[in-house]
Amino acid sequence: MLKLYDVPISGNCHKVRMMLSILGIDYEKVPVNLPEGEQKTPEYLAINPVGKVPAIDDDGTVIWDSQAILVYLATKHGATEWYPDDAVERGQVQQWLSLAANEMFNGPAIARAMVIFNRPGDQEAVRKAGEATLTIVNGWLENHEWLACGRPTIADIAVYPYAAMAWEGHVDMSAYPAMNAWIKRVEALPGYVGMKNMPRPE
Amino acid sequence: MLKLYDVPISGNCHKVRMMLSILGIDYEKVPVNLPEGEQKTPEYLAINPVGKVPAIDDDGTVIWDSQAILVYLATKHGATEWYPDDAVERGQVQQWLSLAANEMFNGPAIARAMVIFNRPGDQEAVRKAGEATLTIVNGWLENHEWLACGRPTIADIAVYPYAAMAWEGHVDMSAYPAMNAWIKRVEALPGYVGMKNMPRPE
Repeated sequence: MLKLYDVPISGNCHKVRMMLSILGIDYEKVPVNLPEGEQKTPEYLAINPVGKVPAIDDDGTVIWDSQAILVYLATKHGATEWYPDDAVERGQVQQWLSLAANEMFNGPAIARAMVIFNRPGDQEAVRKAGEATLTIVNGWLENHEWLACGRPTIADIAVYPYAAMAWEGHVDMSAYPAMNAWIKRVEALPGYVGMKNMPRPE
Repeated sequence: MLKLYDVPISGNCHKVRMMLSILGIDYEKVPVNLPEGEQKTPEYLAINPVGKVPAIDDDGTVIWDSQAILVYLATKHGATEWYPDDAVERGQVQQWLSLAANEMFNGPAIARAMVIFNRPGDQEAVRKAGEATLTIVNGWLENHEWLACGRPTIADIAVYPYAAMAWEGHVDMSAYPAMNAWIKRVEALPGYVGMKNMPRPE
């Protein structure tokens, strides 16, 4: 059975949990204890040399990085609606996978980590960087129902968690009405699963 | 003809120039004046809402983000050796595309930008983050000839420029012998093109 090296509170891990649920794939979670530094042990670095979660072991096939796992799972299971074959559609999806790996992580995700994990750094500067990224996402969604291809794809799964949890990093969510509407659309997808504070409690 | 929105000194733009050369695709460069903020004008933001280079306009198909452009070009031109169809291989490639978008950019690329463009920030902290990333890349290459799939792929093109130019950010390159050997292998690929200081002058 597929093993997910998992941290319950991680949005990057949640991307994978969402994809596995949407595709109906059974799996088991292998908890990784971040406060104890388990992600930097030789055993874990042999799985993921970058020393981060998530990673998966799919009957011996090891893939790390949340975006890579989404691409792998959609491709393996023939889910071309989620990760397309067409060059233009694939390029569109990859745009947002890169934004998820960089700007969404180094903005909203780190701002949240500074609040909920007391991660050190300039909280205001990171929050502002996160707000700049969310402004881009919101602007795009003012004219598009989904991030790519006019339908739900792994682009939406990759960007969603740290958008939906940005308020935990003290971002004022009222500034992003188009993004908030998209968050509700993602949460209405068949197979959607949530986690702590996601969907946001009323 | 394909248009590349280009900055000559940008490693992200260079990824695209390398891919275009390797695939033998004619194109024209449209210079984007970063010091004058041309990447934040309404005209450019209509092309790339993230306000960064590169972007391409391929007879009306607009794709932004260097990794996305690599995926698009390889897919459009049927270059499955560079961007594979197989799920495991595709997952392997995407791991490094994410590392290129995040860790390679926010480490070696920003450290270089601080030196050569006087970009503000904590130069030593960013350089150390970059060195941590290069240590990961070097460690992987101690046991692998290429980053993914046992052959050159877009993973190598995405990671190469900011690895090869890391010394411009005052990184001591002698610490990464396996990576240096891989840099030479990339520079020996058919269709390889360089730019200022790449390959590194003797």
